[in-house]
Amino acid sequence: MMIDFDKSGGLVPAIAQDADTGDVLMLAWMNREAYEETLRTGRACYFSRSRGRLWRKGEESGNVQEVRGVYVDCDADTILLKVHQIGGAACHEGYRSCFFRRVEGEGLQVVGERVFDPAKVYKK
Amino acid sequence: MMIDFDKSGGLVPAIAQDADTGDVLMLAWMNREAYEETLRTGRACYFSRSRGRLWRKGEESGNVQEVRGVYVDCDADTILLKVHQIGGAACHEGYRSCFFRRVEGEGLQVVGERVFDPAKVYKK
Repeated sequence: MMIDFDKSGGLVPAIAQDADTGDVLMLAWMNREAYEETLRTGRACYFSRSRGRLWRKGEESGNVQEVRGVYVDCDADTILLKVHQIGGAACHEGYRSCFFRRVEGEGLQVVGERVFDPAKVYKK
Repeated sequence: MMIDFDKSGGLVPAIAQDADTGDVLMLAWMNREAYEETLRTGRACYFSRSRGRLWRKGEESGNVQEVRGVYVDCDADTILLKVHQIGGAACHEGYRSCFFRRVEGEGLQVVGERVFDPAKVYKK
């Protein structure tokens, strides 16, 4: 097996990076099933720790991630996906990247670009 | 507190990205102490899960990471560091990035650039 899912209790971190811009978009988690589905379908599939089930990124918003490359780190316990982010925003808050806040002194400064209004994308 | 260390048992993933090239260099872990030391010193300090102690990146190899920016994700449970990697290689195996292998079919292809010979850097 190429990924060491056992070391960390079945879940490994998976980083999604924009294949074109190099921006780090998000970090999520994968179990073996999510990893295998990602490879098979070419679309990022994670495991949602809060929901306790597979999370096909974009299943609700339509903002799927088309996978351009899958990389494995030296310890085989972290995955890096290079993706094309449909809709331009990876973050459920409407920003291109989930890392839209920068630590400045004692606080956080919003530095990211907002692409959509979450209230219009995620219906109640 | 800006980072939610409690949610995940005291450790959160921290991604190091090359501030100049955008390459994702590595993923490691931080506890509160590592995070605060990183902010205070401007050099990446992680928590080594295998050694069970703070890991001042480069303490052995000299390949420290000068921190150019610290970012927090939407859930406040993942950290992104933009760094300048001294020595040009983040990976203990001598590659620029720990993600030097790409998944190709059933196997892994080495695609990363090797900058140093680990045997010469890490003395026995």
